[in-house]
Amino acid sequence: MAAIDGFWGVVPAGGAGTRLWPLSRATRPKFLLDLTASGRSLLQATVDRLEPLTGDRLVVVTGRAHADAVRHQLPRLAPARVLAEPAPRDSMAAIGLAAAVVEREDPDAVVGSFAADHVIPDHDAFSAVVSEAVEVARDGHLVTVGVEPTRPATGFGYVRAGEPLAGAATARHVRQFVEKPDAERAAAYLASGEYRWNAGMFVVRAATLLDMLATWHPALADGVRAIAAEPDRLEEVWPGLERIAIDHAVAEPAADAGRVVVVPASFAWDDIGDFGSLATLLPAGTDGMTVLGDTGDVTAIGSTGVVAPGAGRRVAVVGLDDVVVVDTPDALLVTTRARAQDVKQVVDALRAEGRTDLL
Amino acid sequence: MAAIDGFWGVVPAGGAGTRLWPLSRATRPKFLLDLTASGRSLLQATVDRLEPLTGDRLVVVTGRAHADAVRHQLPRLAPARVLAEPAPRDSMAAIGLAAAVVEREDPDAVVGSFAADHVIPDHDAFSAVVSEAVEVARDGHLVTVGVEPTRPATGFGYVRAGEPLAGAATARHVRQFVEKPDAERAAAYLASGEYRWNAGMFVVRAATLLDMLATWHPALADGVRAIAAEPDRLEEVWPGLERIAIDHAVAEPAADAGRVVVVPASFAWDDIGDFGSLATLLPAGTDGMTVLGDTGDVTAIGSTGVVAPGAGRRVAVVGLDDVVVVDTPDALLVTTRARAQDVKQVVDALRAEGRTDLL
Repeated sequence: MAAIDGFWGVVPAGGAGTRLWPLSRATRPKFLLDLTASGRSLLQATVDRLEPLTGDRLVVVTGRAHADAVRHQLPRLAPARVLAEPAPRDSMAAIGLAAAVVEREDPDAVVGSFAADHVIPDHDAFSAVVSEAVEVARDGHLVTVGVEPTRPATGFGYVRAGEPLAGAATARHVRQFVEKPDAERAAAYLASGEYRWNAGMFVVRAATLLDMLATWHPALADGVRAIAAEPDRLEEVWPGLERIAIDHAVAEPAADAGRVVVVPASFAWDDIGDFGSLATLLPAGTDGMTVLGDTGDVTAIGSTGVVAPGAGRRVAVVGLDDVVVVDTPDALLVTTRARAQDVKQVVDALRAEGRTDLL
Repeated sequence: MAAIDGFWGVVPAGGAGTRLWPLSRATRPKFLLDLTASGRSLLQATVDRLEPLTGDRLVVVTGRAHADAVRHQLPRLAPARVLAEPAPRDSMAAIGLAAAVVEREDPDAVVGSFAADHVIPDHDAFSAVVSEAVEVARDGHLVTVGVEPTRPATGFGYVRAGEPLAGAATARHVRQFVEKPDAERAAAYLASGEYRWNAGMFVVRAATLLDMLATWHPALADGVRAIAAEPDRLEEVWPGLERIAIDHAVAEPAADAGRVVVVPASFAWDDIGDFGSLATLLPAGTDGMTVLGDTGDVTAIGSTGVVAPGAGRRVAVVGLDDVVVVDTPDALLVTTRARAQDVKQVVDALRAEGRTDLL
């Protein structure tokens, strides 16, 4: 795969990943972790997937606290290509700033925004989808990727596809974006065949994105363009930027205006929302126990599930099915795959106790 | 309660407690641990229970590897009262040696043997039962304590009571000892009202015990009496002693000969065979989670069971019922109360791996 002319990758690297506690911590969030036992963090794997398409045209946006770690994990990336947010201002400010920086350097650039903590094992299929998305984006569309749903998931938003886009290979117009549905609606979406998972990927000309933003949120567009023009103004301008997600700021109004297109994708995709989904991404051991780490540290007897031994200690599990055991030097989690979403309650409890050292 | 004239306590402190791994280790066996959150180890609690009845007439028999730890835990006991076995030779050699040592010092002594790792919360009830047992033993009987069964347990042996002993308050003749039954027989024993749990306690004149032993196992009686007479011969004589339990060596043949008496007891008694029984001995937290250790180290959400935090780390449990989590600095166990017996399989697996450091 050759790099695509004028295509820039934008990687927002944020999110606490509280449902992956105690692996994921405030100081060591999900995207910096190797959760797939691949030898690469989720961030590194995201960049590995993009580099064949972008070459060195990559920008990562992350919190100031993580900028050094990001630069350390991505030694080939020029340090200036890691934009450090003084404070979280949601995804529109982050992606908008990256688009504005790219726009100044390459006014015709197409940017593709891909979260740093998603997993897509099939790089060829990913490349094919992105290539079509970039071509369509050059015509002034905001392009999203719609992943074919494999189950009636309630944890993802959906995108509803409409008529085919004239002249495109597979792209279709988008009728609407819909928020995370309840179980009944999710089943109806799956049955209809019209809905796809909104994987949160956006491909669009930088100038188009910022012009759309200028239409619906002019102050935000002015702000990120001002920072791109005069980086020294970051501290002054950033705190005043509107906190809003890119979906609400641009994608939904653009869909209402008929300017959004979806490229269908059938590749496997996961955002590793919790240890339950993590377990499905790792190869299961012969005895039904999946180990994220050194299998020599685990003794499993009559048990299935996932164990992450991370403190150099022996972890013994006897007679539990679909269990989740995560061992770290200062905290231990025991739960089940079915209850993995509730790990967030532990983080809430620790915060209420003031144990920020464990968050 | 005043001490009972001429009554000596004998405490065999042995047993690996492998089903309590990883709390119980070869170097730190069950009887040295505070498993009831009382601030006292099981050994110390056993001595605390006996001292009001025996004063300083107490002998502990333990493995050479643990003699120093036993002396350290029992600072009021004269060091010479801790007899160190060069190697394990089962309970008859251990109790027989103690009886022989006591017999030399006090030929009319009554000895009472009580395992170091049993739990009996009601000291007054225990004292009353032992007092009657001692009186009966002075007449030349081998006296055992029969605990009233509260469930059809398959993990204990039983003693079948016969006619009342003439002149005694509650003691009865023993018809027979029976080994651990299967579930059906255990239920029948419970229903009959004739059977009681054999708590492994024996009260008998030291001379009577050794004379009985001389009848059925003369070499063993000679051996322990020889060591008591000349302690320097321990290393020479001990390795040749027969390996046999006191039940088989003396109690069962004596029962057949009509010389065993049982004193009924209705106090709560447990030998803490595994984490399942341990959980029943500890006060449950308000949320159904029992903590053996610092409750501040445990965050339990929608969970019941028992957690032993022992590594100074936060232990979080989410959505598991009747779970057992035991955290130690070098090993972690996760199981359920129902499967707690199978913890022995972990110990077997570690031994097969050669990880003696974890045993």
